[in-house]
Amino acid sequence: MPIVTIKMIEGRTDEQKRNLVEQVTTAVSETVNAPKENVSIIIEEMKKEHYATGGVRASDK
Amino acid sequence: MPIVTIKMIEGRTDEQKRNLVEQVTTAVSETVNAPKENVSIIIEEMKKEHYATGGVRASDK
Amino acid sequence: MPIVTIKMIEGRTDEQKRNLVEQVTTAVSETVNAPKENVSIIIEEMKKEHYATGGVRASDK
Amino acid sequence: MPIVTIKMIEGRTDEQKRNLVEQVTTAVSETVNAPKENVSIIIEEMKKEHYATGGVRASDK
Amino acid sequence: MPIVTIKMIEGRTDEQKRNLVEQVTTAVSETVNAPKENVSIIIEEMKKEHYATGGVRASDK
Amino acid sequence: MPIVTIKMIEGRTDEQKRNLVEQVTTAVSETVNAPKENVSIIIEEMKKEHYATGGVRASDK
Repeated sequence: MPIVTIKMIEGRTDEQKRNLVEQVTTAVSETVNAPKENVSIIIEEMKKEHYATGGVRASDK
Repeated sequence: MPIVTIKMIEGRTDEQKRNLVEQVTTAVSETVNAPKENVSIIIEEMKKEHYATGGVRASDK
Repeated sequence: MPIVTIKMIEGRTDEQKRNLVEQVTTAVSETVNAPKENVSIIIEEMKKEHYATGGVRASDK
Repeated sequence: MPIVTIKMIEGRTDEQKRNLVEQVTTAVSETVNAPKENVSIIIEEMKKEHYATGGVRASDK
Repeated sequence: MPIVTIKMIEGRTDEQKRNLVEQVTTAVSETVNAPKENVSIIIEEMKKEHYATGGVRASDK
Repeated sequence: MPIVTIKMIEGRTDEQKRNLVEQVTTAVSETVNAPKENVSIIIEEMKKEHYATGGVRASDK
């Protein structure tokens, strides 16, 4: 706790994800005053076919 | 915003999903008075092995 | 199943929410071919202080 | 209702998941006094690359 | 990890919730072979006005 | 997109939350190469009675 869930379109590299969880953990830890080891992060990737804004999927734009 | 997440068993066609996000966006937009372009939709599919009611998975019924 | 979660800023009337779940249920049912009684909807309201885009909360805009 | 979501690292056997939903359904049903058939469970598996604690992913530990 | 989220209509007693997290933790721990201290549980309560099945909210039934 | 959800025990100040969304947005934007205005953040607070680890709620520890 805190538990952070990050939903995004698939396609980022392994290196980007490694940096993502490192930087977000630092940002959360410093601003809400929680030890880094208490911060959990879950990455949930979506296909373009499964994300829409304005009624149109990313895969259809 | 609004952000809509739809969880369902996998197996729908691409055409069904296209219609799903289109119709749900319209329904949300009209009833809560939000511009369509502000409505985001995420589809999350599940395997039958990962969904249960009454203690029994869909794959075991 | 399907299970639909709708996250939005608080402030809609009871009548708007009643229409919202009715219309979204119809939209889901018709497009993915699921009986209406199988569609569940959860509304989750947020305070303006708890939703941000571009790094700025709705309450700070 | 209740709706239970269980997020965990992938790798459990089919038998483990079958027992998981059976036992959790019983636990929920008995403690909150809900009929078993009203309890829904969703299992969401994650890759080790997508779960981090302390800023480090399970795949990097 | 595992992280369990339990969504249910509000109204259970504190004692019911205490038993709920205790029993569910045991059920998860024993079936997927995870130490109890690794199991996190989040209870999310809903108002009857915010949960619908078949297009009708629990508060309207 | 990305959509970030941060679940944590209630009790942080308004200033902490303002900084939280600002810093997390920057961290996400820089590491996955997404414009800041595309990053959405939702804060979801929990009562101590509704979060447990090891089968014991934070309010009972």
